[in-house]
Formats: sequence, structure tokens, C-alpha cells
Amino acid sequence: MLECPLKHHIESKNIEDYPSRVWARMINSLSGFKSANLIGTVSKEGQTNLALVSSVVHLGANPPLMAFVLRPHSEESPRHTLLNLKEISFFTINHVAKSFYKQAHQTSANFPKEISEFSACGFNEEFRNSLAAPYVKESDLQIGLKLKEILDIPLNKTHFVIGEIIEFFVNDAELKDDGYIDIETLDSVCVSGLDRYHTTKSLARLSYAKPNKEICEIPLSGERELKPHS
Amino acid sequence: MLECPLKHHIESKNIEDYPSRVWARMINSLSGFKSANLIGTVSKEGQTNLALVSSVVHLGANPPLMAFVLRPHSEESPRHTLLNLKEISFFTINHVAKSFYKQAHQTSANFPKEISEFSACGFNEEFRNSLAAPYVKESDLQIGLKLKEILDIPLNKTHFVIGEIIEFFVNDAELKDDGYIDIETLDSVCVSGLDRYHTTKSLARLSYAKPNKEICEIPLSGERELKPHS
Repeated sequence: MLECPLKHHIESKNIEDYPSRVWARMINSLSGFKSANLIGTVSKEGQTNLALVSSVVHLGANPPLMAFVLRPHSEESPRHTLLNLKEISFFTINHVAKSFYKQAHQTSANFPKEISEFSACGFNEEFRNSLAAPYVKESDLQIGLKLKEILDIPLNKTHFVIGEIIEFFVNDAELKDDGYIDIETLDSVCVSGLDRYHTTKSLARLSYAKPNKEICEIPLSGERELKPHS
Repeated sequence: MLECPLKHHIESKNIEDYPSRVWARMINSLSGFKSANLIGTVSKEGQTNLALVSSVVHLGANPPLMAFVLRPHSEESPRHTLLNLKEISFFTINHVAKSFYKQAHQTSANFPKEISEFSACGFNEEFRNSLAAPYVKESDLQIGLKLKEILDIPLNKTHFVIGEIIEFFVNDAELKDDGYIDIETLDSVCVSGLDRYHTTKSLARLSYAKPNKEICEIPLSGERELKPHS
């Protein structure tokens, strides 16, 4: 049994000792850096909605699935994204970039349903023939999805929303030959805690890990360039 | 209907046109920046396991819940984390830092069950009286959790593993007065795609968003310092 050198040992059984906002900030900081995406939806009356979400995760490549967590819906805190998805089962995921992260943060304010965060926060909605949901014109990585399933999580009444990728749009230069998309050059941001935003600085791309084989750095364009065949 | 200025329009219906690894790299790049965490577990025989996971998400603060995605278990690709969790229902989540991200990447190699990634990849396991799972001594943010639920996702046979936070350990200086934990100063890294690692550079902490109120930057130690009362 070794002694822990880290100063703070915080136990959930003492949750009552902390003001609820302080506790929420701590727990929200624990998962590490989070993605920053804007989710675009539309109601059957055509009212658009835009929501900042930091819980988008990759679920699988084939079929191509992504998912995100939505907090509980209630009368006081209506989840317009959830209501819209129950009417029109398509949505978009749009990367938040450095040039508009403050506008994106503003979409998390509690706007009434009749006000679209697109106009309230200065974004342009872009409908395309391929999908019944609005893209964010300002975003350089835009993904269109069809809702597949909403898993309810009884433990805390949240929802795990799963969509299948129909299509995506990205700048030419950022898609590398081996499929990797350079989201750092796109200036996509990440989030920590409830309210802090960060850009990134690349350390390296690393080779595919195998037992008893040393990890090495690979070029940005992918591993195959390590082995030129003349 | 506006024209899209982004060069690449990629559609999932054309998935067969892409080599599967290229497709996987593209789809894995779409969600944005991901957290980098090491999940520590132990079998009932005492065999430890350490797995790099980039899908850890915050699920809720009260009760304090975190979750992550595990790929399908099979004979060829056994998921030792899943097998261990079915025997001993505790696990740890440990932030990956810049100083050991290459070692952490190496844990993703397909080691046989009788070899622990702790020893194979140069990490020190640390058991404490409070939890039946090994912590990663090298990590400066260590979280201990009890397994609450494994949600199976039939769409692609993945698993959404939900744990309740029992306790966590963090360096003194990184825990701010308002509860925010400065994971950038901890040198926690983030991931993009399947294999790229990044450090971060702070843009700002932003004030709580409200309709018709302008977003402003707040100090690292939190919003309350904006309003000193003399």
C-alpha cells in the first residue's frame, strides 16, 4: 500500500460539504478535455435550434455512429434539441472553431423556443437538399446525421442520443491521404470543466501499437509515408 | 438553399469506395478533440489491466457519474476491461499527461490477459484501501469509481459503461476556489482521430450564458472574483 502524493483527496460521500455549483464544476472537470460542437435541429414548424454540446463521442465507424448526452427534459429546463428530434429525426454536428467560440458559448443561454440560437447568437443556418436539419455555415467541419436511437439513462434521467452519419463536409486541405482529418489546423477548440476553452498544440501522431514493438512518431499524412518503396 | 464552400462532401452511402482503415480514420476524426484516460481494473485473481480510452464523458454531477464506450468483446479481440468489470465492479480513470502519453498509447496493443499493461508499458499500480481497483501512480488526476450499469448498444454491439465517482485525487494547486480543476496546468493531453495527441493552450474561461447578456471572460479562479466588494 503506497501513500498518495496528491494533495487533495475528495470523496463523494462528503458532497453535502460543497456548494452545488462548486461540486458541479469539480465533477465536470474530471473527464478531461471535451469536444465542442454545435447541434443543429429543426421543429416540424420549421423553428431551428442550436445547442452547444461537449459530450459528442465516436461510437463506431461501420456503421458510422456518433452519440451525445442530453440532460433531463423538464418544464423549467426544456430541451429543445430533444423535442425537435422527436419531431424531425435528423440533426447536424458542427465543430466549434476559435473564431466563434464565444458566440457558441452564448447558445447555452436559456432562450425561449420561439427564438432560434442561430439568429440570437449570430450564426447562419444552411439547409441542404440532403438532410432535414440546419448546418452551421461558419463551421469548417459539418456532419449530417439521422437519429437512430435515444437511450434513456434512468440513473440520472439523462439521454444518450445516437445518430448515424449520412454525410460530412470538410475543407480540402485538412483531409489527409490516410483518412485522418487535421482538426487542429481547422482551429477546432476543446473544453474543460463547464466554461473554459482551449486551442491545441500537436505533440505527435503515433504508430499503431503492438506488443513488443516500440511506438514511433508518424508523419501528419499517415504511416504509409514511413515506408517509401522505390 | 446556399452552396457549401467546403471542398469535401463525403457520403456514408459510398463507404465501399474507401479502404476500411481510411474510413475508420475519417470517422474517428469527426467527433472533435477527445479526452485521454487510462482505465485501471483488476480480475478476481488479482491480474491488473490498463486500457487507453478516448471516450470518457461526464454524465452528471449529482449523483456524480462518468461513462465510457467499450468496443465489442469477442474471442479474437477480448476486452479485458469488460471481463474484469464483470468480476470486480470497481475501476479507476487516470488522466494521461504529456510526460507519459507514448507509454499510454502502448497500452492499446493487444497484450494477452496474463500480461498487465502496467508492467508492460512502464506504469506503477497503486491500490488504496478505499477502492478495489488499481490507480496509475504517474497520473496527477486519479478518479475511483464503482460500476453502476453497462448499457449494451445493439446497433454496433458496443457497451456504454457507467460508473459512480467514489473519490478522486488531484494536485493542490490545480483545484481552484470555485471548483474548477486546471487540467491544462496538469499537462493532461487530448486526442484527435485514432493516433494524434495534443497539449492545449487556454483561450479563456467564459461567464455563465444568459439571453441578452454579453459573454465575458472570467479569471482562472472563477467568476466571483469579478465583483470585489470593498
